[in-house]
Amino acid sequence: MSTPTASSLPDLTSALAAINNGETTALALINQYFDRIDAREADVGAWQFRLSREEYLAQYQQQRGFYEASLLKGLPVAIKDIIDTASMPTEMGSPIHKGRMPAEDATCVELLKRAGAIVLGKTVTTEFAYFKPGKTRNPADLNRTPGGSSSGSAAAVADGMVPMALGSQTAASVIRPAAYCGTLGYVGSRGEYSLRGGQPLAQSLDSLGLFARQVSDLQLMRAVLLRSPVSELTSIKPRRIVVCRGDQVGETDPAMAAAIERVCEILRQQDIEVVTLDDQHRIQQLVTHHSQIMAWEVCRNLARESRYTDLLSAPLQALMETGLTMPREEYLQSLEAADANRDWLWQTCAEADAILAPAAPGVAPLGHDKTGAPHMSRPWQAMGLPVITLPGQTDEAGLPLGIQLIGRARADDRLLAVARWLQPLL
Amino acid sequence: MSTPTASSLPDLTSALAAINNGETTALALINQYFDRIDAREADVGAWQFRLSREEYLAQYQQQRGFYEASLLKGLPVAIKDIIDTASMPTEMGSPIHKGRMPAEDATCVELLKRAGAIVLGKTVTTEFAYFKPGKTRNPADLNRTPGGSSSGSAAAVADGMVPMALGSQTAASVIRPAAYCGTLGYVGSRGEYSLRGGQPLAQSLDSLGLFARQVSDLQLMRAVLLRSPVSELTSIKPRRIVVCRGDQVGETDPAMAAAIERVCEILRQQDIEVVTLDDQHRIQQLVTHHSQIMAWEVCRNLARESRYTDLLSAPLQALMETGLTMPREEYLQSLEAADANRDWLWQTCAEADAILAPAAPGVAPLGHDKTGAPHMSRPWQAMGLPVITLPGQTDEAGLPLGIQLIGRARADDRLLAVARWLQPLL
Repeated sequence: MSTPTASSLPDLTSALAAINNGETTALALINQYFDRIDAREADVGAWQFRLSREEYLAQYQQQRGFYEASLLKGLPVAIKDIIDTASMPTEMGSPIHKGRMPAEDATCVELLKRAGAIVLGKTVTTEFAYFKPGKTRNPADLNRTPGGSSSGSAAAVADGMVPMALGSQTAASVIRPAAYCGTLGYVGSRGEYSLRGGQPLAQSLDSLGLFARQVSDLQLMRAVLLRSPVSELTSIKPRRIVVCRGDQVGETDPAMAAAIERVCEILRQQDIEVVTLDDQHRIQQLVTHHSQIMAWEVCRNLARESRYTDLLSAPLQALMETGLTMPREEYLQSLEAADANRDWLWQTCAEADAILAPAAPGVAPLGHDKTGAPHMSRPWQAMGLPVITLPGQTDEAGLPLGIQLIGRARADDRLLAVARWLQPLL
Repeated sequence: MSTPTASSLPDLTSALAAINNGETTALALINQYFDRIDAREADVGAWQFRLSREEYLAQYQQQRGFYEASLLKGLPVAIKDIIDTASMPTEMGSPIHKGRMPAEDATCVELLKRAGAIVLGKTVTTEFAYFKPGKTRNPADLNRTPGGSSSGSAAAVADGMVPMALGSQTAASVIRPAAYCGTLGYVGSRGEYSLRGGQPLAQSLDSLGLFARQVSDLQLMRAVLLRSPVSELTSIKPRRIVVCRGDQVGETDPAMAAAIERVCEILRQQDIEVVTLDDQHRIQQLVTHHSQIMAWEVCRNLARESRYTDLLSAPLQALMETGLTMPREEYLQSLEAADANRDWLWQTCAEADAILAPAAPGVAPLGHDKTGAPHMSRPWQAMGLPVITLPGQTDEAGLPLGIQLIGRARADDRLLAVARWLQPLL
């Protein structure tokens, strides 16, 4: 039997349709995902812990009736190792938590399991979802970083090892690895999903993230996570898109600038109005505000871990030192700036359906000692907005370039519907 | 040796001063707290789990040097049993979690321990910090409810069993039991403290709460929890207080209305301007908005527990059913209303130092089957504001009547400073 390629494995929506139509079976697909893992994991290194094929199939067979009747049919999901699971350790990418066994599954894990997903394993996260990389390599080019912090989840979905994965984002931890690996990543509005059982990094910034290969997959996962009906998943053609080119945020590669222009042209050809954001340096300033909020909160959330100085990376220790010495007034000013600019942004973009921006400065950087620059995500994350990475653009060498669409706070349904309309055109 | 009374046991600030001055020792005080527990626990029922005197003293002696050099000197703290501890079970007031052992201490527990507090035990919470009472009785009148959900923490501090305790508030879970039991309770601004390891109930509403007997105790605990210097704890005389009488929120007893008028008179005698809030029914509407937000989020956060229908109380099941059937539009409207009214409130009260309101409709109700009405807290909690219950007022029978002071979002320092100035006058 030949090894399936990433693109030969169906996305979640297609897989479920094929099972429901009788064209294939969940078991056949599960075996294909495992074939893919067997062929690729030694190179990609997406997994921190995982079930063997035998363990997975035993679990499936034990509750076969439940899975057959379920929405997600026993298909595999990958869980970032910052999210608690009762059946496998949750080590948060840190030797401090080696072998740590949580008392129970996080709520997001429970909800996916109840809908019929099986947790295939835990995926590599950077150290406490901050910067220090794990072992994962970019499946699009093994010499490059997959991005982080949700490195393993992005790589596993992009490489066809699983049709869906959970991640989390505090700075750029979903949007960037999705862009670098060439798959879809969606970050919920702040407060949108239960984070119970997800280890907090910065309470004013943390959001749950989802990875999949179709917007409809993300919509389905979202419905499961919100305990909402799955019948109302739609597609909406936008009328106006505001574009925030990378130069307003920070350094951007020419290849990314070209990709953004290509997408703008695609939009115009569909008679969608494309307007440039007149941002008065506000978006750029939010990069700093985000960093300030993060530093203040991380050093408090990780108070326990801060004792283990010999087991913490230098960048994380530096972040915590920044947070500890920061005057409280600066932290409060950054929180206020994030709030005020969210109001300003959507007054400025009142008629827009979404904002278009680079999901990262360019393609994934070479090497594995860093996960790439996070500045393209910081402004939107500071404002708590829902964001989605859409793949489809590439540089001249064929490496993935991700663009992001940003929506209004709590208007996640509309953002996903617009993204669903746009995805096939990219 | 005679049993110490609640008032004979020093508050935290006085205890630390007495130890530092050499007037007493931490060991002597610890023994007095245990004497009080031995005398009263059978009646009050504040504790779900706790160390024996011998276990506590052994822990103290083992690290005596650390405790003697520490800020909190090895004095005991009580932790609401919704907050994770690694050394004792965390059962959340539910048989579903009987014997549940978390992997680690919550961050707030870690920080207090690191400052030299010893976790004496876990205090009784209502079921998942919602309405179903535990065994705790009101130390001011054992025939009455202590309020909830932080029942045991409020009772333990009010009864002099410990000088400090942690709780949490989603609706009225700190402010109300503090008022009913006659002690101080403080709820931090939303987002103010790390909630890592505290079990979430509703992410848009949950806040950490502290109990103690002096405002200066709360300021000290706050500094520890924020890893901030303890040198800058102040008192501020307010210039203008806005009063929100109970009738604007919901039913209020005449005794409480009289208590509020007495406090207003005390303020006026100090040349503090007292202005009535012209609230245009907004505060009352926030009671409903709060309930809506809570229902939507609780049924998602407690998704796992919702399976165990035979182990859940009827009120909690009803709340979750409300949340599951609620149109998302209603939830979003309630979130928007909470945001908009927070902006409106502090425009209206621009010159005010704090808002004064009843902390509960009246004294603690008779009986133990309910924890009293939460409506007096819902509006402020929906807006994410910092709040403090101040005791001192009583009805004709001498039962505690708590008033609350409400501050601007994230202006917790100022609120506590104003409360500190006011407390001795009440």
